[in-house]
Amino acid sequence: MASERSVAEGSSAPGPVPKGKIRIYSMRFCPFAQRARLVLAAKGIRYDIININLKNKPSWFLEKNPLGAVPVLETDHGEIIYESPIVCEYLDEMYKQKKLFPEDPFEKAKQKMLLEEFSKVIPYFYKVLTGRSKCENTSAAEQELKEKLAKLNETLLQKKTRFFGGNSVTMIDYLMWPWFERVDGYGVRHCLDGASQLQQWMQDMMDDPVIKATMFDSETHKAFLQSFCDGKPNYDLGL
Amino acid sequence: MASERSVAEGSSAPGPVPKGKIRIYSMRFCPFAQRARLVLAAKGIRYDIININLKNKPSWFLEKNPLGAVPVLETDHGEIIYESPIVCEYLDEMYKQKKLFPEDPFEKAKQKMLLEEFSKVIPYFYKVLTGRSKCENTSAAEQELKEKLAKLNETLLQKKTRFFGGNSVTMIDYLMWPWFERVDGYGVRHCLDGASQLQQWMQDMMDDPVIKATMFDSETHKAFLQSFCDGKPNYDLGL
Repeated sequence: MASERSVAEGSSAPGPVPKGKIRIYSMRFCPFAQRARLVLAAKGIRYDIININLKNKPSWFLEKNPLGAVPVLETDHGEIIYESPIVCEYLDEMYKQKKLFPEDPFEKAKQKMLLEEFSKVIPYFYKVLTGRSKCENTSAAEQELKEKLAKLNETLLQKKTRFFGGNSVTMIDYLMWPWFERVDGYGVRHCLDGASQLQQWMQDMMDDPVIKATMFDSETHKAFLQSFCDGKPNYDLGL
Repeated sequence: MASERSVAEGSSAPGPVPKGKIRIYSMRFCPFAQRARLVLAAKGIRYDIININLKNKPSWFLEKNPLGAVPVLETDHGEIIYESPIVCEYLDEMYKQKKLFPEDPFEKAKQKMLLEEFSKVIPYFYKVLTGRSKCENTSAAEQELKEKLAKLNETLLQKKTRFFGGNSVTMIDYLMWPWFERVDGYGVRHCLDGASQLQQWMQDMMDDPVIKATMFDSETHKAFLQSFCDGKPNYDLGL
Protein backbone atom coordinates (compact mmCIF):
# COMPACT_ATOMS: atom_id res chain seq x y z
CA MET A 1 0.00 0.00 0.00
CA ALA A 2 2.27 2.77 -1.28
CA SER A 3 -0.47 5.38 -1.20
CA GLU A 4 -4.16 5.39 -0.40
CA ARG A 5 -4.76 8.57 -2.41
CA SER A 6 -7.47 8.13 -5.03
CA VAL A 7 -6.60 7.88 -8.70
CA ALA A 8 -8.64 9.58 -11.42
CA GLU A 9 -8.98 9.61 -15.20
CA GLY A 10 -5.61 10.34 -16.74
CA SER A 11 -3.68 8.30 -14.17
CA SER A 12 -1.55 5.52 -15.58
CA ALA A 13 -2.98 2.01 -15.39
CA PRO A 14 -1.50 -0.13 -12.63
CA GLY A 15 0.72 -3.06 -13.58
CA PRO A 16 -0.19 -6.70 -12.98
CA VAL A 17 -0.89 -7.83 -9.42
CA PRO A 18 2.32 -9.13 -7.76
CA LYS A 19 2.50 -12.92 -7.40
CA GLY A 20 0.89 -14.24 -4.24
CA LYS A 21 -1.11 -11.07 -3.65
CA ILE A 22 -4.59 -9.88 -4.40
CA ARG A 23 -5.59 -6.33 -5.28
CA ILE A 24 -8.75 -4.47 -4.36
CA TYR A 25 -10.06 -1.43 -6.16
CA SER A 26 -11.91 0.48 -3.49
CA MET A 27 -13.04 3.90 -2.28
CA ARG A 28 -12.27 4.70 1.34
CA PHE A 29 -15.80 5.76 2.27
CA CYS A 30 -17.83 3.33 0.14
CA PRO A 31 -19.86 0.96 2.38
CA PHE A 32 -19.99 -1.73 -0.32
CA ALA A 33 -16.22 -1.71 -0.75
CA GLN A 34 -15.90 -1.74 3.03
CA ARG A 35 -17.62 -5.14 3.08
CA ALA A 36 -14.72 -6.56 1.08
CA ARG A 37 -12.10 -4.75 3.17
CA LEU A 38 -13.65 -6.19 6.33
CA VAL A 39 -13.42 -9.70 4.92
CA LEU A 40 -9.82 -9.14 3.80
CA ALA A 41 -8.93 -7.87 7.28
CA ALA A 42 -10.85 -10.61 9.13
CA LYS A 43 -9.03 -13.31 7.20
CA GLY A 44 -5.63 -11.60 7.45
CA ILE A 45 -5.18 -11.58 3.68
CA ARG A 46 -2.25 -9.52 2.32
CA TYR A 47 -3.52 -7.17 -0.35
CA ASP A 48 -2.78 -4.22 -2.59
CA ILE A 49 -5.29 -1.39 -2.55
CA ILE A 50 -6.05 1.15 -5.24
CA ASN A 51 -8.64 3.80 -4.38
CA ILE A 52 -10.71 5.04 -7.28
CA ASN A 53 -11.99 8.58 -7.79
CA LEU A 54 -15.59 7.55 -8.49
CA LYS A 55 -16.56 10.98 -9.81
CA ASN A 56 -13.82 10.93 -12.44
CA LYS A 57 -13.05 7.26 -13.08
CA PRO A 58 -9.92 6.20 -14.92
CA SER A 59 -10.82 4.61 -18.26
CA TRP A 60 -8.58 1.63 -17.42
CA PHE A 61 -10.80 1.03 -14.36
CA LEU A 62 -13.92 0.93 -16.53
CA GLU A 63 -12.23 -1.71 -18.65
CA LYS A 64 -11.87 -3.88 -15.55
CA ASN A 65 -15.47 -3.34 -14.38
CA PRO A 66 -17.79 -1.81 -16.98
CA LEU A 67 -20.30 -1.13 -14.18
CA GLY A 68 -17.75 1.30 -12.74
CA ALA A 69 -18.51 0.35 -9.15
CA VAL A 70 -16.25 -0.73 -6.29
CA PRO A 71 -15.25 -3.13 -4.83
CA VAL A 72 -13.38 -4.95 -7.60
CA LEU A 73 -10.85 -7.70 -6.94
CA GLU A 74 -7.97 -8.52 -9.26
CA THR A 75 -5.93 -11.68 -8.73
CA ASP A 76 -2.35 -12.35 -9.70
CA HIS A 77 -3.78 -14.34 -12.63
CA GLY A 78 -5.55 -11.22 -13.89
CA GLU A 79 -8.97 -12.54 -12.86
CA ILE A 80 -11.58 -9.87 -12.08
CA ILE A 81 -14.40 -10.20 -9.52
CA TYR A 82 -17.01 -7.54 -8.66
CA GLU A 83 -20.37 -7.11 -6.82
CA SER A 84 -19.69 -6.98 -3.09
CA PRO A 85 -21.46 -10.18 -1.94
CA ILE A 86 -19.77 -12.15 -4.75
CA VAL A 87 -16.40 -10.63 -3.86
CA CYS A 88 -16.83 -11.51 -0.18
CA GLU A 89 -17.90 -15.09 -0.88
CA TYR A 90 -15.02 -15.54 -3.33
CA LEU A 91 -12.53 -14.39 -0.69
CA ASP A 92 -14.11 -16.70 1.88
CA GLU A 93 -13.85 -19.70 -0.43
CA MET A 94 -10.40 -18.89 -1.78
CA TYR A 95 -8.74 -18.18 1.56
CA LYS A 96 -9.69 -21.01 3.88
CA GLN A 97 -8.45 -19.45 7.15
CA LYS A 98 -11.22 -18.22 9.50
CA LYS A 99 -14.24 -19.17 7.40
CA LEU A 100 -16.88 -16.44 7.67
CA PHE A 101 -19.83 -18.18 6.02
CA PRO A 102 -21.05 -21.28 7.88
CA GLU A 103 -20.17 -24.61 6.27
CA ASP A 104 -23.70 -25.94 6.81
CA PRO A 105 -25.76 -25.25 3.65
CA PHE A 106 -28.89 -24.27 5.59
CA GLU A 107 -27.06 -21.93 7.95
CA LYS A 108 -25.39 -20.34 4.94
CA ALA A 109 -28.74 -20.05 3.12
CA LYS A 110 -30.19 -18.32 6.19
CA GLN A 111 -27.41 -15.71 6.07
CA LYS A 112 -28.09 -15.15 2.38
CA MET A 113 -31.83 -14.75 2.94
CA LEU A 114 -31.07 -12.18 5.64
CA LEU A 115 -28.68 -10.37 3.30
CA GLU A 116 -31.44 -10.26 0.70
CA GLU A 117 -33.77 -8.76 3.30
CA PHE A 118 -31.12 -6.24 4.38
CA SER A 119 -30.46 -5.27 0.75
CA LYS A 120 -34.02 -3.96 0.69
CA VAL A 121 -33.31 -1.81 3.78
CA ILE A 122 -30.23 -0.06 2.33
CA PRO A 123 -32.17 2.19 -0.10
CA TYR A 124 -34.04 3.69 2.87
CA PHE A 125 -30.78 5.09 4.26
CA TYR A 126 -30.22 6.88 0.96
CA LYS A 127 -33.82 8.01 0.68
CA VAL A 128 -33.28 10.03 3.86
CA LEU A 129 -29.92 11.42 2.69
CA THR A 130 -31.18 12.30 -0.79
CA GLY A 131 -34.24 14.02 0.65
CA ARG A 132 -32.11 16.08 3.00
CA SER A 133 -29.67 17.08 0.28
CA LYS A 134 -32.68 18.53 -1.56
CA CYS A 135 -33.87 20.26 1.62
CA GLU A 136 -37.05 18.18 1.61
CA ASN A 137 -38.99 17.09 4.68
CA THR A 138 -37.64 13.58 5.36
CA SER A 139 -39.73 12.62 8.36
CA ALA A 140 -41.69 10.02 6.34
CA ALA A 141 -38.47 8.48 4.98
CA GLU A 142 -37.00 8.41 8.48
CA GLN A 143 -40.13 6.69 9.77
CA GLU A 144 -39.81 4.07 6.98
CA LEU A 145 -36.16 3.44 7.85
CA LYS A 146 -37.11 3.16 11.52
CA GLU A 147 -39.74 0.52 10.71
CA LYS A 148 -37.28 -1.51 8.60
CA LEU A 149 -34.70 -1.40 11.39
CA ALA A 150 -37.35 -2.40 13.95
CA LYS A 151 -38.04 -5.48 11.85
CA LEU A 152 -34.33 -6.32 11.75
CA ASN A 153 -34.23 -5.82 15.51
CA GLU A 154 -37.08 -8.32 15.85
CA THR A 155 -35.18 -10.83 13.67
CA LEU A 156 -32.12 -10.59 15.92
CA LEU A 157 -34.28 -10.82 19.04
CA GLN A 158 -35.83 -14.06 17.78
CA LYS A 159 -32.41 -15.54 17.05
CA LYS A 160 -31.46 -15.18 20.73
CA THR A 161 -27.77 -14.85 19.78
CA ARG A 162 -25.39 -11.87 20.12
CA PHE A 163 -24.69 -11.71 16.39
CA PHE A 164 -26.77 -12.46 13.31
CA GLY A 165 -25.09 -15.80 12.63
CA GLY A 166 -24.57 -16.99 16.20
CA ASN A 167 -22.52 -15.89 19.20
CA SER A 168 -19.48 -14.82 17.20
CA VAL A 169 -19.09 -12.43 14.27
CA THR A 170 -19.64 -14.11 10.88
CA MET A 171 -20.10 -13.00 7.28
CA ILE A 172 -23.62 -11.59 7.62
CA ASP A 173 -22.50 -9.21 10.38
CA TYR A 174 -19.69 -7.81 8.23
CA LEU A 175 -22.02 -7.50 5.22
CA MET A 176 -24.46 -5.35 7.21
CA TRP A 177 -22.03 -3.40 9.39
CA PRO A 178 -20.94 -0.53 7.07
CA TRP A 179 -24.38 1.17 7.22
CA PHE A 180 -24.49 0.93 11.00
CA GLU A 181 -21.02 2.43 11.31
CA ARG A 182 -22.50 5.47 9.54
CA VAL A 183 -25.69 6.03 11.58
CA ASP A 184 -24.25 9.08 13.33
CA GLY A 185 -22.39 10.35 10.26
CA TYR A 186 -25.62 10.04 8.27
CA GLY A 187 -27.67 11.57 11.09
CA VAL A 188 -30.07 8.64 11.38
CA ARG A 189 -29.14 7.34 14.85
CA HIS A 190 -32.66 8.21 16.10
CA CYS A 191 -34.08 5.65 13.62
CA LEU A 192 -32.65 3.03 16.00
CA ASP A 193 -34.68 4.30 18.96
CA GLY A 194 -36.31 1.31 20.61
CA ALA A 195 -34.20 -1.18 18.62
CA SER A 196 -32.28 -2.18 21.72
CA GLN A 197 -31.13 -5.54 20.35
CA LEU A 198 -29.60 -3.87 17.30
CA GLN A 199 -27.98 -1.26 19.51
CA GLN A 200 -26.43 -3.99 21.64
CA TRP A 201 -25.23 -5.73 18.44
CA MET A 202 -23.56 -2.49 17.35
CA GLN A 203 -21.79 -2.24 20.72
CA ASP A 204 -20.62 -5.83 20.38
CA MET A 205 -19.48 -5.27 16.79
CA MET A 206 -17.36 -2.32 17.90
CA ASP A 207 -15.46 -4.67 20.20
CA ASP A 208 -14.48 -6.78 17.19
CA PRO A 209 -10.79 -6.15 16.42
CA VAL A 210 -11.47 -6.13 12.66
CA ILE A 211 -14.09 -3.39 13.02
CA LYS A 212 -11.83 -1.46 15.39
CA ALA A 213 -8.91 -1.57 12.97
CA THR A 214 -10.87 -0.44 9.92
CA MET A 215 -13.60 1.94 11.02
CA PHE A 216 -13.81 5.68 10.50
CA ASP A 217 -15.29 7.87 13.23
CA SER A 218 -18.62 9.61 12.74
CA GLU A 219 -17.06 13.03 12.21
CA THR A 220 -15.10 11.68 9.26
CA HIS A 221 -18.17 9.99 7.73
CA LYS A 222 -20.10 13.23 8.23
CA ALA A 223 -17.37 15.34 6.60
CA PHE A 224 -17.17 12.98 3.61
CA LEU A 225 -20.96 12.99 3.22
CA GLN A 226 -20.97 16.79 3.32
CA SER A 227 -18.29 16.97 0.61
CA PHE A 228 -20.30 14.46 -1.45
CA CYS A 229 -23.52 16.46 -1.11
CA ASP A 230 -21.59 19.59 -2.11
CA GLY A 231 -20.73 17.83 -5.38
CA LYS A 232 -17.03 17.63 -4.48
CA PRO A 233 -16.48 14.28 -2.80
CA ASN A 234 -13.24 14.43 -0.81
CA TYR A 235 -11.98 10.88 -1.44
CA ASP A 236 -8.66 11.70 0.23
CA LEU A 237 -10.15 13.20 3.38
CA GLY A 238 -7.70 12.86 6.26
CA LEU A 239 -4.77 11.61 4.20
CA MET B 1 -46.71 -35.97 -5.96
CA ALA B 2 -50.33 -36.89 -5.32
CA SER B 3 -51.73 -33.90 -7.18
CA GLU B 4 -50.24 -30.94 -8.95
CA ARG B 5 -53.41 -28.89 -8.65
CA SER B 6 -52.83 -25.53 -6.99
CA VAL B 7 -54.00 -24.91 -3.45
CA ALA B 8 -55.58 -21.63 -2.35
CA GLU B 9 -56.60 -19.81 0.82
CA GLY B 10 -58.88 -22.03 2.84
CA SER B 11 -57.00 -25.23 2.00
CA SER B 12 -55.69 -27.16 4.95
CA ALA B 13 -52.01 -26.76 5.76
CA PRO B 14 -49.83 -29.66 4.65
CA GLY B 15 -48.28 -31.88 7.29
CA PRO B 16 -44.56 -32.14 7.96
CA VAL B 17 -42.26 -33.20 5.12
CA PRO B 18 -41.74 -37.00 5.15
CA LYS B 19 -38.34 -38.16 6.42
CA GLY B 20 -35.70 -38.28 3.69
CA LYS B 21 -37.64 -36.03 1.33
CA ILE B 22 -37.70 -32.36 0.50
CA ARG B 23 -40.76 -30.33 -0.44
CA ILE B 24 -41.02 -27.49 -2.90
CA TYR B 25 -43.79 -24.92 -2.95
CA SER B 26 -44.05 -23.92 -6.57
CA MET B 27 -46.33 -22.62 -9.29
CA ARG B 28 -46.28 -24.57 -12.55
CA PHE B 29 -45.69 -21.57 -14.81
CA CYS B 30 -43.43 -19.46 -12.57
CA PRO B 31 -39.95 -19.08 -14.16
CA PHE B 32 -38.31 -18.48 -10.78
CA ALA B 33 -39.80 -21.66 -9.32
CA GLN B 34 -38.78 -23.47 -12.51
CA ARG B 35 -35.14 -22.71 -11.69
CA ALA B 36 -35.48 -24.80 -8.54
CA ARG B 37 -37.40 -27.56 -10.32
CA LEU B 38 -34.66 -27.77 -12.94
CA VAL B 39 -32.02 -28.20 -10.23
CA LEU B 40 -34.13 -30.83 -8.45
CA ALA B 41 -34.55 -32.73 -11.72
CA ALA B 42 -30.90 -32.37 -12.79
CA LYS B 43 -29.71 -33.81 -9.50
CA GLY B 44 -32.33 -36.54 -9.41
CA ILE B 45 -33.63 -35.45 -6.00
CA ARG B 46 -36.87 -37.06 -4.82
CA TYR B 47 -39.29 -34.35 -3.81
CA ASP B 48 -42.83 -33.44 -2.83
CA ILE B 49 -44.44 -30.60 -4.71
CA ILE B 50 -47.22 -28.28 -3.60
CA ASN B 51 -48.41 -25.74 -6.15
CA ILE B 52 -49.64 -22.45 -4.75
CA ASN B 53 -52.46 -20.31 -6.08
CA LEU B 54 -50.47 -17.07 -6.10
CA LYS B 55 -53.56 -14.91 -6.58
CA ASN B 56 -55.23 -16.29 -3.49
CA LYS B 57 -52.44 -17.55 -1.27
CA PRO B 58 -53.14 -19.84 1.66
CA SER B 59 -52.37 -18.07 4.94
CA TRP B 60 -50.28 -21.06 6.04
CA PHE B 61 -48.08 -20.44 2.99
CA LEU B 62 -47.51 -16.81 3.99
CA GLU B 63 -46.38 -18.06 7.38
CA LYS B 64 -43.69 -20.10 5.66
CA ASN B 65 -42.55 -17.25 3.40
CA PRO B 66 -43.83 -13.81 4.39
CA LEU B 67 -42.75 -12.52 0.95
CA GLY B 68 -45.40 -14.82 -0.53
CA ALA B 69 -43.23 -15.83 -3.50
CA VAL B 70 -42.25 -19.21 -4.90
CA PRO B 71 -40.04 -21.23 -4.92
CA VAL B 72 -39.91 -22.18 -1.26
CA LEU B 73 -38.17 -25.31 0.01
CA GLU B 74 -39.12 -27.12 3.19
CA THR B 75 -36.89 -29.84 4.59
CA ASP B 76 -37.82 -32.80 6.74
CA HIS B 77 -36.38 -30.80 9.65
CA GLY B 78 -38.92 -28.02 9.00
CA GLU B 79 -36.25 -25.68 7.63
CA ILE B 80 -37.47 -23.09 5.12
CA ILE B 81 -35.43 -21.68 2.22
CA TYR B 82 -36.63 -19.11 -0.34
CA GLU B 83 -35.29 -16.76 -3.08
CA SER B 84 -34.57 -18.83 -6.20
CA PRO B 85 -30.74 -18.41 -6.42
CA ILE B 86 -30.42 -19.23 -2.70
CA VAL B 87 -32.71 -22.25 -3.11
CA CYS B 88 -30.69 -23.54 -6.08
CA GLU B 89 -27.35 -23.10 -4.33
CA TYR B 90 -28.68 -24.78 -1.19
CA LEU B 91 -29.81 -27.79 -3.24
CA ASP B 92 -26.45 -27.93 -5.00
CA GLU B 93 -24.54 -27.91 -1.71
CA MET B 94 -26.87 -30.26 0.14
CA TYR B 95 -27.11 -32.91 -2.57
CA LYS B 96 -23.59 -33.61 -3.74
CA GLN B 97 -24.47 -35.67 -6.85
CA LYS B 98 -23.90 -33.89 -10.16
CA LYS B 99 -22.59 -30.58 -8.85
CA LEU B 100 -24.00 -27.74 -10.93
CA PHE B 101 -21.92 -24.83 -9.67
CA PRO B 102 -18.18 -25.18 -10.40
CA GLU B 103 -16.00 -26.04 -7.40
CA ASP B 104 -13.41 -23.42 -8.39
CA PRO B 105 -14.21 -20.17 -6.51
CA PHE B 106 -13.41 -17.95 -9.50
CA GLU B 107 -15.46 -20.01 -11.97
CA LYS B 108 -18.34 -19.92 -9.48
CA ALA B 109 -17.95 -16.15 -8.98
CA LYS B 110 -18.09 -15.71 -12.77
CA GLN B 111 -21.43 -17.56 -12.90
CA LYS B 112 -22.75 -15.35 -10.10
CA MET B 113 -21.63 -12.15 -11.86
CA LEU B 114 -23.38 -13.34 -14.99
CA LEU B 115 -26.53 -14.12 -12.99
CA GLU B 116 -26.39 -10.61 -11.57
CA GLU B 117 -26.17 -9.24 -15.10
CA PHE B 118 -29.01 -11.46 -16.29
CA SER B 119 -31.17 -10.38 -13.32
CA LYS B 120 -31.10 -6.91 -14.82
CA VAL B 121 -32.35 -8.28 -18.17
CA ILE B 122 -35.41 -10.06 -16.70
CA PRO B 123 -37.43 -6.85 -16.05
CA TYR B 124 -37.23 -6.04 -19.78
CA PHE B 125 -39.23 -9.17 -20.61
CA TYR B 126 -41.97 -7.97 -18.28
CA LYS B 127 -41.77 -4.39 -19.53
CA VAL B 128 -42.84 -5.68 -22.95
CA LEU B 129 -45.60 -7.89 -21.50
CA THR B 130 -46.95 -5.18 -19.20
CA GLY B 131 -46.97 -2.65 -22.01
CA ARG B 132 -48.88 -5.00 -24.27
CA SER B 133 -51.42 -5.87 -21.59
CA LYS B 134 -52.17 -2.12 -21.44
CA CYS B 135 -52.35 -1.96 -25.24
CA GLU B 136 -49.37 0.41 -25.32
CA ASN B 137 -46.83 0.67 -28.12
CA THR B 138 -44.02 -1.60 -26.91
CA SER B 139 -41.54 -1.16 -29.75
CA ALA B 140 -39.13 0.81 -27.51
CA ALA B 141 -39.31 -1.86 -24.80
CA GLU B 142 -38.76 -4.57 -27.40
CA GLN B 143 -35.72 -2.70 -28.71
CA GLU B 144 -34.32 -2.47 -25.17
CA LEU B 145 -34.82 -6.20 -24.63
CA LYS B 146 -33.15 -6.88 -27.97
CA GLU B 147 -30.11 -4.82 -26.96
CA LYS B 148 -29.80 -6.61 -23.63
CA LEU B 149 -30.01 -9.99 -25.35
CA ALA B 150 -27.44 -8.89 -27.93
CA LYS B 151 -25.06 -8.13 -25.07
CA LEU B 152 -25.66 -11.58 -23.60
CA ASN B 153 -25.06 -13.05 -27.03
CA GLU B 154 -21.71 -11.22 -27.14
CA THR B 155 -20.80 -12.60 -23.70
CA LEU B 156 -21.43 -16.15 -24.86
CA LEU B 157 -19.54 -15.52 -28.10
CA GLN B 158 -16.50 -14.39 -26.16
CA LYS B 159 -16.60 -17.47 -23.95
CA LYS B 160 -16.19 -19.69 -27.01
CA THR B 161 -18.08 -22.51 -25.26
CA ARG B 162 -21.44 -24.10 -26.04
CA PHE B 163 -22.94 -23.21 -22.67
CA PHE B 164 -22.42 -20.29 -20.30
CA GLY B 165 -20.23 -22.24 -17.89
CA GLY B 166 -18.32 -24.39 -20.38
CA ASN B 167 -19.16 -27.18 -22.81
CA SER B 168 -21.76 -28.84 -20.61
CA VAL B 169 -24.89 -27.50 -18.92
CA THR B 170 -24.18 -26.02 -15.47
CA MET B 171 -26.05 -23.93 -12.91
CA ILE B 172 -25.96 -20.63 -14.79
CA ASP B 173 -27.67 -22.19 -17.82
CA TYR B 174 -30.53 -23.53 -15.69
CA LEU B 175 -30.86 -20.18 -13.87
CA MET B 176 -31.33 -18.32 -17.17
CA TRP B 177 -33.29 -20.92 -19.13
CA PRO B 178 -36.89 -20.31 -17.96
CA TRP B 179 -37.14 -16.94 -19.75
CA PHE B 180 -35.80 -18.40 -22.98
CA GLU B 181 -38.26 -21.28 -22.86
CA ARG B 182 -40.94 -18.55 -22.94
CA VAL B 183 -39.74 -16.40 -25.87
CA ASP B 184 -42.45 -17.70 -28.18
CA GLY B 185 -45.11 -17.85 -25.50
CA TYR B 186 -44.28 -14.25 -24.56
CA GLY B 187 -44.10 -13.23 -28.22
CA VAL B 188 -40.56 -11.85 -28.00
CA ARG B 189 -38.73 -14.36 -30.25
CA HIS B 190 -37.89 -11.53 -32.68
CA CYS B 191 -35.83 -9.85 -29.92
CA LEU B 192 -33.32 -12.67 -30.52
CA ASP B 193 -32.87 -11.75 -34.20
CA GLY B 194 -29.15 -11.63 -34.91
CA ALA B 195 -28.27 -13.26 -31.57
CA SER B 196 -27.15 -16.44 -33.32
CA GLN B 197 -24.98 -17.66 -30.45
CA LEU B 198 -27.90 -17.44 -28.03
CA GLN B 199 -30.14 -19.17 -30.55
CA GLN B 200 -27.64 -22.01 -30.82
CA TRP B 201 -27.47 -22.20 -27.02
CA MET B 202 -31.26 -22.51 -26.88
CA GLN B 203 -31.11 -25.38 -29.38
CA ASP B 204 -28.43 -27.10 -27.32
CA MET B 205 -30.38 -26.56 -24.11
CA MET B 206 -33.42 -28.23 -25.64
CA ASP B 207 -31.34 -31.35 -26.12
CA ASP B 208 -30.68 -31.50 -22.39
CA PRO B 209 -32.77 -34.34 -20.89
CA VAL B 210 -33.65 -32.23 -17.84
CA ILE B 211 -35.04 -29.44 -19.98
CA LYS B 212 -36.86 -31.94 -22.18
CA ALA B 213 -38.49 -33.60 -19.18
CA THR B 214 -39.70 -30.40 -17.54
CA MET B 215 -40.52 -27.87 -20.25
CA PHE B 216 -43.93 -26.64 -21.36
CA ASP B 217 -44.56 -25.91 -25.02
CA SER B 218 -45.05 -22.37 -26.26
CA GLU B 219 -48.80 -22.77 -26.71
CA THR B 220 -49.17 -23.63 -23.04
CA HIS B 221 -47.02 -20.68 -21.93
CA LYS B 222 -49.07 -18.44 -24.21
CA ALA B 223 -52.36 -19.72 -22.84
CA PHE B 224 -51.22 -19.26 -19.24
CA LEU B 225 -50.00 -15.73 -20.01
CA GLN B 226 -53.35 -14.90 -21.60
CA SER B 227 -55.23 -16.17 -18.54
CA PHE B 228 -52.88 -14.13 -16.33
CA CYS B 229 -53.41 -10.95 -18.35
CA ASP B 230 -57.16 -11.54 -18.16
CA GLY B 231 -56.86 -11.42 -14.38
CA LYS B 232 -57.76 -15.11 -14.03
CA PRO B 233 -54.48 -17.03 -14.00
CA ASN B 234 -55.19 -20.65 -14.84
CA TYR B 235 -52.67 -22.33 -12.52
CA ASP B 236 -54.08 -25.75 -13.33
CA LEU B 237 -53.98 -25.35 -17.10
CA GLY B 238 -53.69 -28.74 -18.77
CA LEU B 239 -54.20 -30.82 -15.62
